[in-house]
Amino acid sequence: MVGALMKVHVIVMPKQSVLDPQGVAVRNALKDVGLETVESVRVGKFLELEFKTPPSEMKLEEICRDLLSNPVIEDYTIQYHSTAEA
Amino acid sequence: MVGALMKVHVIVMPKQSVLDPQGVAVRNALKDVGLETVESVRVGKFLELEFKTPPSEMKLEEICRDLLSNPVIEDYTIQYHSTAEA
Repeated sequence: MVGALMKVHVIVMPKQSVLDPQGVAVRNALKDVGLETVESVRVGKFLELEFKTPPSEMKLEEICRDLLSNPVIEDYTIQYHSTAEA
Repeated sequence: MVGALMKVHVIVMPKQSVLDPQGVAVRNALKDVGLETVESVRVGKFLELEFKTPPSEMKLEEICRDLLSNPVIEDYTIQYHSTAEA
């Protein structure tokens, strides 16, 4: 084992109250190709971070809030994953 | 119960062999704010689809391949979720 990396996934989505034009465009495109049953689509960002040593939860929250998302229009979710081989 | 919606999450990520400049930029930004232990960052798309009636798995695969991702440079993952109240 050369070194285990800790994986953290951060999902950044537009808030429910915020219009998501990219999602609307995808929904319309899906309807156009015959997927009539699609109700709504929202498009966000998916970030896969790998750490040599995991940062504190507080530090990670701070980074998500200040750097990775725009809290005015976006919500974020942090998912911790078990270590992966480097 | 007005109607249950089926949620499907599609994660579209740049392939491992493809350079991800957005990810590199985020990694450098994280290092700049003091998160020295970050090893790599990759940035992809996260799509949340809601269906009134779920499409077939084959149809969904087809849509991910042809519409939601660029198979030359991107990989996709489909996650099925239990029904959510409408």
